Amino acid sequence: MRALRYHGPLDLRLEHDVPEPECLPHQVKIRPSFCGICGSDLHTYLSPVIIPYKDTPHPVTGETWPVTFGHEFAGDVVEVGSDAVQGGLRVGDRVAVQPTICCNRCPPCKEGYPNCCNSLGFVGLMGWGGGMSDFVSVDARFAFKLPDNVPSDIGAMVEPLAVAWHAIDQTGIQPGGSALVMGAGPVGIAMVQCLKARQVKEIIVVEIVPERKDFAARLGATVVIDPKEQDVVAKCKELCDGQGPDAAFDCAGVAPTMKTACRAIRHRGVVVNVAFNEKEVPFQFNDLMIGEKRIYTSVSYSIEDFRDVIEALGNGLIDVKEMITRKTTLDRVVEDGILALMHEKDKHMKILVDVRA
Amino acid sequence: MRALRYHGPLDLRLEHDVPEPECLPHQVKIRPSFCGICGSDLHTYLSPVIIPYKDTPHPVTGETWPVTFGHEFAGDVVEVGSDAVQGGLRVGDRVAVQPTICCNRCPPCKEGYPNCCNSLGFVGLMGWGGGMSDFVSVDARFAFKLPDNVPSDIGAMVEPLAVAWHAIDQTGIQPGGSALVMGAGPVGIAMVQCLKARQVKEIIVVEIVPERKDFAARLGATVVIDPKEQDVVAKCKELCDGQGPDAAFDCAGVAPTMKTACRAIRHRGVVVNVAFNEKEVPFQFNDLMIGEKRIYTSVSYSIEDFRDVIEALGNGLIDVKEMITRKTTLDRVVEDGILALMHEKDKHMKILVDVRA
Ligand SMILES: [Zn+2]
Ligand SMILES: [Zn+2]
Ligand SMILES: [Zn+2]
Ligand SMILES: [Zn+2]
Repeated sequence: MRALRYHGPLDLRLEHDVPEPECLPHQVKIRPSFCGICGSDLHTYLSPVIIPYKDTPHPVTGETWPVTFGHEFAGDVVEVGSDAVQGGLRVGDRVAVQPTICCNRCPPCKEGYPNCCNSLGFVGLMGWGGGMSDFVSVDARFAFKLPDNVPSDIGAMVEPLAVAWHAIDQTGIQPGGSALVMGAGPVGIAMVQCLKARQVKEIIVVEIVPERKDFAARLGATVVIDPKEQDVVAKCKELCDGQGPDAAFDCAGVAPTMKTACRAIRHRGVVVNVAFNEKEVPFQFNDLMIGEKRIYTSVSYSIEDFRDVIEALGNGLIDVKEMITRKTTLDRVVEDGILALMHEKDKHMKILVDVRA
Repeated sequence: MRALRYHGPLDLRLEHDVPEPECLPHQVKIRPSFCGICGSDLHTYLSPVIIPYKDTPHPVTGETWPVTFGHEFAGDVVEVGSDAVQGGLRVGDRVAVQPTICCNRCPPCKEGYPNCCNSLGFVGLMGWGGGMSDFVSVDARFAFKLPDNVPSDIGAMVEPLAVAWHAIDQTGIQPGGSALVMGAGPVGIAMVQCLKARQVKEIIVVEIVPERKDFAARLGATVVIDPKEQDVVAKCKELCDGQGPDAAFDCAGVAPTMKTACRAIRHRGVVVNVAFNEKEVPFQFNDLMIGEKRIYTSVSYSIEDFRDVIEALGNGLIDVKEMITRKTTLDRVVEDGILALMHEKDKHMKILVDVRA
């Protein structure tokens, strides 16, 4: 079968003779239809910061390079493992896949936090195949049936939406509350849509790039602030009863965004770091002290997050059609996908691979 | 009456003709017996970072320099205001004073977080007199009766203990849990005593200075780690089921302590920043991401914290006699107190002013 495989930095190869995976008793075998390309894929393409498994096998999958790419995908069930039948999935069902790889044995796993697993990994990055291939077999409990009104290209958006949903869950923000989103890239826009679905009333987005500002406004931001034109902290206080938003989400991950978010939120508010931080940034912890503010982090998602996002998509509370700015094919992932995210990132929000095209 | 008054940096004056305060209806008038000197006093003595009220009056007290010094004090009630009688305090009662100044009107105050007041201040720093004087009148609800078995010098320790108690409260750490304390100065040792009183089982202290290491071991640390001799993160994991402590308290406030604390705690653990940070430090937010760790901050205390600390002192769960390394007099606060904290800080834990001596 075909599979786009990572052989190391700058070395992605579309191979045509990769063996088809079997379907183990606890698995379902899936034929992917759409698969998203994201920042993690870009980071991995450039340098193996996320999957340093050239010589040391991943502790759960036991695999080293090459590994199949693609962790944001939806597709059709083509086979159901003998033990998985009771889960209710049938051949022909369309599903979105949660790509979590966890050990099921460490204390975080046992406590119900597989996303904090000591050996956390992702299908499509650390082995067990991936969405950018003709077939992939996954744990049946990680395959979520899509309702009839959620097409498979939108199904490929469930994973990045679940990242946003999970971050929001950490904060305890309530319907009618207020939120600040730093950065209107793909993660920031997913955040805006999920905040809207959860009836957060004031959704303030901070962004500089004109295309992204427009995007934020169209997809649910109640206010878009350009930090070059306005004082973000003062504007946030003004918009939120003089106090500031209940929670902030740093989806940009550069030094000034974290600082601004900490200053802008209300007393006992929470800043969630959602961005991947390439390096250390200067930080003044006193910016948090006044008002006993807090910093939380959020890593991937739980099973509940996938379920909740799919429900919100089915109910029309989330609508991310507009986020899909390009569809490409398996043989052009680098040119049309990864390089576009690098060099034309202002133009693109989410690039999907039409895996069967 | 006598009062030690702050006229600006490096200018503390013992004055003998300061008018005695009246006792307003909601107040009790107190004759201080002992008053602690702390890091905030030292910072203020050196530069007006905490009380920049030379030209702008504090929004609640309306006062500018000079202000009376001393916010960690206990003393005797000498008068009870007409509205305060119902609170139960009587002339002759010994009390510890919570020095909180708040506006009672802003959203944090109304929500029950006076320590997050938009105009937060402290008696002994921002006006309304202070503990380093012959008399001071305070809001009766902020005067807490000391049990017979808690002498007034120990009563002067309630304030710094309440700071530690409040920080612990933020984390939700349970009896039988595990904690890491970075730095065994006065705040760190208060933390150790409060953790012990709350039956936290593993109390790990990280400290370099020999005198402070000894102090920590004597006052309740179960393990003292010298980071020059041992790998703090590895040792913490080893001591706490391979996972790390439930919570960490940064009482040192230098770049490496925060980083080490974040790496050492278990998944979904909490680091509380208790230290005053003079400046920005380089910080890598990814150190928090793995395991969804969190940073909380803690500011002063609530009324409940004073009550709980006094109860623990009365029950003998907290014993801080040994922390008092010197007693001095009102005319020698700079020489014996502030300069000693600066130049002989390894020798001293808490220096008290015997106000009546
Ligand atoms: Zn992704
Ligand atoms: Zn695990
Ligand atoms: Zn103090
Ligand atoms: Zn207030």
